[in-house]
Amino acid sequence: MASKQQNVGPPAGTRDFFGPVMRGRERAIAIVRGVFERYGFQPLETPAFERIEVLTGKYGADEKLIFKILKRGEYEATGEADMALRYDLTVPLARYIASAGMQMGDVFRRYQIGPVWRADRPAKGRFREFYQCDVDIAGANTRLADADVLLAVADALHALGLDGCVIRLNSRQVLRGLMHAYDVPAGRETDVLTAIDKLDKIGVEGVEKEMAERNIPAEISRAMLADFTAGNPVEKLQQRAESNDAGRAGWRDVQQILALVGPGLSGSRIAFDPCVARGLDYYTGFVFEVMYEKEPGKLPLSIAAGGRYDELVGMFLGRALPACGGSLGFERILMLLEERQAKLSPIPAVLVAVWDDEAAPDACGLAAELRRAGVSVELSVGGGKLASQLKYANRKEVPLCVFRGPDEKSRDEVAIKNLRSGSQQVVPRTKMVEAVQIEIAGIERNSQSCA
Amino acid sequence: MASKQQNVGPPAGTRDFFGPVMRGRERAIAIVRGVFERYGFQPLETPAFERIEVLTGKYGADEKLIFKILKRGEYEATGEADMALRYDLTVPLARYIASAGMQMGDVFRRYQIGPVWRADRPAKGRFREFYQCDVDIAGANTRLADADVLLAVADALHALGLDGCVIRLNSRQVLRGLMHAYDVPAGRETDVLTAIDKLDKIGVEGVEKEMAERNIPAEISRAMLADFTAGNPVEKLQQRAESNDAGRAGWRDVQQILALVGPGLSGSRIAFDPCVARGLDYYTGFVFEVMYEKEPGKLPLSIAAGGRYDELVGMFLGRALPACGGSLGFERILMLLEERQAKLSPIPAVLVAVWDDEAAPDACGLAAELRRAGVSVELSVGGGKLASQLKYANRKEVPLCVFRGPDEKSRDEVAIKNLRSGSQQVVPRTKMVEAVQIEIAGIERNSQSCA
Repeated sequence: MASKQQNVGPPAGTRDFFGPVMRGRERAIAIVRGVFERYGFQPLETPAFERIEVLTGKYGADEKLIFKILKRGEYEATGEADMALRYDLTVPLARYIASAGMQMGDVFRRYQIGPVWRADRPAKGRFREFYQCDVDIAGANTRLADADVLLAVADALHALGLDGCVIRLNSRQVLRGLMHAYDVPAGRETDVLTAIDKLDKIGVEGVEKEMAERNIPAEISRAMLADFTAGNPVEKLQQRAESNDAGRAGWRDVQQILALVGPGLSGSRIAFDPCVARGLDYYTGFVFEVMYEKEPGKLPLSIAAGGRYDELVGMFLGRALPACGGSLGFERILMLLEERQAKLSPIPAVLVAVWDDEAAPDACGLAAELRRAGVSVELSVGGGKLASQLKYANRKEVPLCVFRGPDEKSRDEVAIKNLRSGSQQVVPRTKMVEAVQIEIAGIERNSQSCA
Repeated sequence: MASKQQNVGPPAGTRDFFGPVMRGRERAIAIVRGVFERYGFQPLETPAFERIEVLTGKYGADEKLIFKILKRGEYEATGEADMALRYDLTVPLARYIASAGMQMGDVFRRYQIGPVWRADRPAKGRFREFYQCDVDIAGANTRLADADVLLAVADALHALGLDGCVIRLNSRQVLRGLMHAYDVPAGRETDVLTAIDKLDKIGVEGVEKEMAERNIPAEISRAMLADFTAGNPVEKLQQRAESNDAGRAGWRDVQQILALVGPGLSGSRIAFDPCVARGLDYYTGFVFEVMYEKEPGKLPLSIAAGGRYDELVGMFLGRALPACGGSLGFERILMLLEERQAKLSPIPAVLVAVWDDEAAPDACGLAAELRRAGVSVELSVGGGKLASQLKYANRKEVPLCVFRGPDEKSRDEVAIKNLRSGSQQVVPRTKMVEAVQIEIAGIERNSQSCA
């Protein structure tokens, strides 16, 4: 036996999920899965680890955050790794696409929901094991594909009850056109975009400062910020962007996507937003970010994002493969849903108490009958007197208790105690299921109205 | 771009699951989850990895099969591991119970379904990443607890459609009583039980030979085998077992469990079977194994097992904690279900084809309407002519195609083509959803009757 002092928590940055928390996660996953499957996306699950060479060279400086798995047996002593835990769901997707083989003209739609692992420093809201939830279309470079991904993401959020989101839409080509229009020196575009991307967070002065630090000529940052903060920025920026080919093409794409997405959108609205640059270099077409306003006046939270990346998922295929996708910020979304305390029907809803040892077979039979009717029942297997079993049910917040002593049994009746209200009724055994279901419906109504 | 020759498969002993295969796995999980929750078990999910000291010293010689995770950053060069992938779901359960704290008298019910990792040599049906599915009750040492676990396991198999199973029930005390009755020398019980456990597989001669190799006196193996293969072995063995205290207690437990389980059992039958010893030393009470007869006359497959182990899950709690549980052989069960080709409704059920670029918004609208009605729709985002889109649908085995050209649009009609039957109908747009649902119902009926 180990001592009580030892650490019995999960490893730093990871979590145990139990009971209602776990059920909340599962329910959210089931909702998202249902939406994605309605959009014709197929589920994919890849192994937790990949051969290490599949992951190396894919994440730049973040490569140091990859969890590596030591070789085994006689090779363990080398201290070398041959496998590594997946860092995201995109590289496994690219590997899967290559292994499945894609013919020209094939369109591949998949979603994947599952944990990824990053050896980041654990902090509030930053985990070493967390779920990602990705949806992607590979093999098509059309605005219809872009729109379908956007609609799937928006519909998933709507189904989760996260309405009122704003989808900020932009395009890398629009940004390229703007860079050209502002005469940003070649090779400095990323610096400028990274700064502009932060306008929401750090304000005009912050962006100016950051651009100065990155040696962007002051006349460029002044001209840009004047447009971006103008009363009618979209109009200004459209004019700038359309002054060259890249910008014109990007602007047309954005308009097409808006026209396709707009009519079918539920719960969210979509708008062009030139500030969205998305930090990641790999985007090649449209980019988007979904903002959720938790409280009016507070800075909205980014809960989903994505775009088009035509150079990424072909990495193991040996050729570029057009693709676009979206990713739900699953852990953040779950935190929002938990705060709203979406009510789940209680598990267990009923404790079937056992009068005494001789009554065990009878209690077993009552439990079986309720379970067959779909009721979640805990059979009281711990022994002890009825009173202590009722206390146990109270402590575990089981709302109902069903039992029968010799009197009830001789009349073929069953006692049903509502532990929330304290009321108790005795019904004929043939009415037990119905009476319990009525009690549960009442309890669910009450907890909904309290929420 | 990487070369095409590189290995793009998943690591040896692991698998990618996609589309219908993945959906079959998810459906099985959902079914089992539903049953376990009806039994009042709460879901638990623990991290993929544990601090390495949590796992070391728990698996004996199998410890070499644990995947270890290299330290990171400046410590990577030491070649040391500080984490390891979970090897089963039992040690994480024991750790979780200790971290959650259990008061005396508490009963803890949980199920966990998820992958575990073992660096076993990959072989047919043996994987390095595979799902386990465990259900356990901790904190109660009653036959009611034993029976409830058995019923939950049997009900899960019934819900999965695996009827006709035989639950072989035994008890470690019965075995201890028998060992005493046959005068098996102290310390040699495990050798004898391991040999007897194989009677089904290697026959009388095989068991005799194995006992001889293990230096069990010939008169013992002869006496045992005479009883075990007698015309009325249960009666013989009952007499032998009841000749001492341990055997009597075990026999009474078995009879109690049979009496509790029998009436509520659906789809399976249960019987005392003295040959079941279960290889694992940690069982302390009843043990069981569920056998599924795939084909009459063939050796039945073991698809679930479990028992009582009162010394195991308290390992991090600092005191013994009575517990019992069962485990479904999830990967084997999935193989059985796949062979039966349980039909899932097709995803996608409909391809909404796009007549030409100008028709894109209209196609988007048709797809949205069908999806809102719960139909799984792939919007044809790859471009190209209608004929090539229909070919694509055929190749992907999408059963229905919905589209409209200028003629249908001018009359506000929609064309629905059934790609299985080749028939095509044109319906008013207002009737589209209904007509598609009728087609899908017909397709599902057909595929069921073909199965």
